[in-house]
Amino acid sequence: MQQRMALSDGARPTGQFRNTAYVINESRRHFDAAHSAGLMAVQGRSTTGRTFLLGAGPLDARPEVIDFVRCSYLGLDNHPEVVSGAIAAIEAHRSLHWSCARTRLNFDLLAELEATLSEMFCARVLAFSSVMLANLGAMPILASGELTGGRKPVVVFDRTAHISLAYHKPVVADETRVETIAHNDIDALDRLCRDNPVVAYVCDGVYSMGGNSPIKELRQLQERYGLFLYIDDAHGISLFGHLGQGFARSQFPQVLGDRTIIAASLAKGFGASGGMLMLGTPDQETLFRRYAIPHAFSAAANLAAVGAALGSCKIHRSAELGQRQRQLAQRIDLFDRRIATAERGNSLPIRMITMGSEAKAIAFARELLDCGFYTSVTFFPTVGQGKAGIRVCITADHGISQIEQLCDCILEKVAETTDKLLCDRPSSEG
Amino acid sequence: MQQRMALSDGARPTGQFRNTAYVINESRRHFDAAHSAGLMAVQGRSTTGRTFLLGAGPLDARPEVIDFVRCSYLGLDNHPEVVSGAIAAIEAHRSLHWSCARTRLNFDLLAELEATLSEMFCARVLAFSSVMLANLGAMPILASGELTGGRKPVVVFDRTAHISLAYHKPVVADETRVETIAHNDIDALDRLCRDNPVVAYVCDGVYSMGGNSPIKELRQLQERYGLFLYIDDAHGISLFGHLGQGFARSQFPQVLGDRTIIAASLAKGFGASGGMLMLGTPDQETLFRRYAIPHAFSAAANLAAVGAALGSCKIHRSAELGQRQRQLAQRIDLFDRRIATAERGNSLPIRMITMGSEAKAIAFARELLDCGFYTSVTFFPTVGQGKAGIRVCITADHGISQIEQLCDCILEKVAETTDKLLCDRPSSEG
Repeated sequence: MQQRMALSDGARPTGQFRNTAYVINESRRHFDAAHSAGLMAVQGRSTTGRTFLLGAGPLDARPEVIDFVRCSYLGLDNHPEVVSGAIAAIEAHRSLHWSCARTRLNFDLLAELEATLSEMFCARVLAFSSVMLANLGAMPILASGELTGGRKPVVVFDRTAHISLAYHKPVVADETRVETIAHNDIDALDRLCRDNPVVAYVCDGVYSMGGNSPIKELRQLQERYGLFLYIDDAHGISLFGHLGQGFARSQFPQVLGDRTIIAASLAKGFGASGGMLMLGTPDQETLFRRYAIPHAFSAAANLAAVGAALGSCKIHRSAELGQRQRQLAQRIDLFDRRIATAERGNSLPIRMITMGSEAKAIAFARELLDCGFYTSVTFFPTVGQGKAGIRVCITADHGISQIEQLCDCILEKVAETTDKLLCDRPSSEG
Repeated sequence: MQQRMALSDGARPTGQFRNTAYVINESRRHFDAAHSAGLMAVQGRSTTGRTFLLGAGPLDARPEVIDFVRCSYLGLDNHPEVVSGAIAAIEAHRSLHWSCARTRLNFDLLAELEATLSEMFCARVLAFSSVMLANLGAMPILASGELTGGRKPVVVFDRTAHISLAYHKPVVADETRVETIAHNDIDALDRLCRDNPVVAYVCDGVYSMGGNSPIKELRQLQERYGLFLYIDDAHGISLFGHLGQGFARSQFPQVLGDRTIIAASLAKGFGASGGMLMLGTPDQETLFRRYAIPHAFSAAANLAAVGAALGSCKIHRSAELGQRQRQLAQRIDLFDRRIATAERGNSLPIRMITMGSEAKAIAFARELLDCGFYTSVTFFPTVGQGKAGIRVCITADHGISQIEQLCDCILEKVAETTDKLLCDRPSSEG
């Protein structure tokens, strides 16, 4: 699950960027409570659709739970085409994995996958074993200035950019200037673009804790100033566009150009396993295939991931993709008609029910689990301190009645445990 | 493939730790040459043993090549038990991957794998989707002081520590002091231990470009000063120990204790896909299961990786492991009797044929490929500038005649292209 590591400036007594000890000490008791409540590090076995068998005992003794934690927004992670693709790739090579760098030896099927994705997304697509490693590969190259005509950019991070991006701030800062601006603060970004010759902006497309980047405004800054955009659209891929181009890519022109890189997941909406980068030019591709650290010094996505992704490409190129996108939209709408959140009305599948107190959020998530619904209780450092809540991931694969039952349960528990209905109270989580 | 990023201090005109632009500009022409020679980004299809079909055309039109690039030192990456384990796990869940953090929901089979590995290696084992992410997870926790009684250590890196460790120096330096010492410089480490109350040392067990850490001496420093050891044994796992504990773990006592963490691969010698951390205490396990960034903010190894690793565990617990370890030793010995390298006589499967000039190394690797042997041509930044060469990975799965043919070919080409035989010249690569 992609989540963000939120640290306000006041929370950093030492270090310019990181204070791991502080994070640990401030959150330890909440982790203890959430684990004691059986809400974290849960084990399960897949059944059908969005249900799983909870726990570790004999299969027939485990309770069946409806899952709102997994980010398989189109419900593709157990699609027969994806599963059979994974197995077919293993069987074709009679192997799962080659332990060598991609700069050396590559499964032919991986080349086929990258060619297919490149055609689908009108970009030069490189696959990685995870989005976290795709981002690790990109950040030093971005800092080097090699993507911006040999001039090092000021690299500006959105304050709530995913930890798989924000982690690299000290690394980037060792090579060039790093700035962090408030969430979606286009004015601040505009000022930085005016004051500096080369600026790169690093953000999420769809934010894992709700909301999204203002792509239109970012493109305007790009047109005005030549702003370089690095957008992690892990949570937006597949959900929009007739080929599942995703939230970010579908808002850019056919030709991506030399000033935009989009990272995305091969899991989540896409339904397989791994990550990818969409690059815009042959020079960028050459650069990444030589110098992206995971490409040169770690291993590729394994063959099962490659085969599953090839299976998912078939679904993406069929009418089923649009059907699933529409099913998802219906389910989001259904949820929104029942439960008010800060995200109500946006077309994204992530909904945050903000409770404030960590203890209250943990108790609430436990009550939902007792009713058969597994949701993500979120607290610091995933969200800010005192901004705990419940994350609900809606998918196309949830039955209408499953969504309705969850909403009933949320409203009932809210009525029981708070003075006024949650739906009367605007959520503060962005 | 795990390789190291070697940067001498003189090669860093800007930045305390990194200068990506310099690396790119200094190595670009060598990458161009190696790609033009068909030595990099090669495609292939598995056949049997250590051969593969080279290229992208129709399968029956591709030449068969003997591979000395893959790090599957025991030849397990296409073992039937590993392959069927991968497929069985996918079939058990009718799914390949769950897109959520390990702090949330986990495949039951992943818990089974970790329990099995923990028992085999007498440690608390956490699985990751790659060693690179296992290391990313560990470095900030090490820097925080939470592993060393709440006191932040001086974190000392071996200069040739793998890039998946060295990458994090700026991140660690944002939280505590970082030092880099010469390769295997026990005296320098001893001085740092004397001068500082808490020291952690970060190194490889087996180095990807040849050689190893002096574990015995490191353990002496640990006993004398309480030195914390973080050892990446990606290339040493499975090769030693009756259960494949590996180069590093097999040199520590039964109880790992609270001052040693060993990272290792679930690929390479192990034969599956992914990485792992061997921890020594329940407190460490709790800490990593909450705060290791890939554990909390990225996805687990996929089910195929988990199932393949479970299959490999069966092999590790059978007599076949020892047979394969002995086969590997015989093949290393055979190579050493023919070809002199700096590594001659050590029990590790990595051999470096140092040529010096990048152009010469590229030409040499191309000649070997023309004879049907695919090896890794290595040059800056993988090794130091002007220290280019050929890396040969020997495996238990190579036929005796395949090793002999490679040696014949190396000697023949050396005789053709240099004045004196390579085996008369000591290699300078450590």
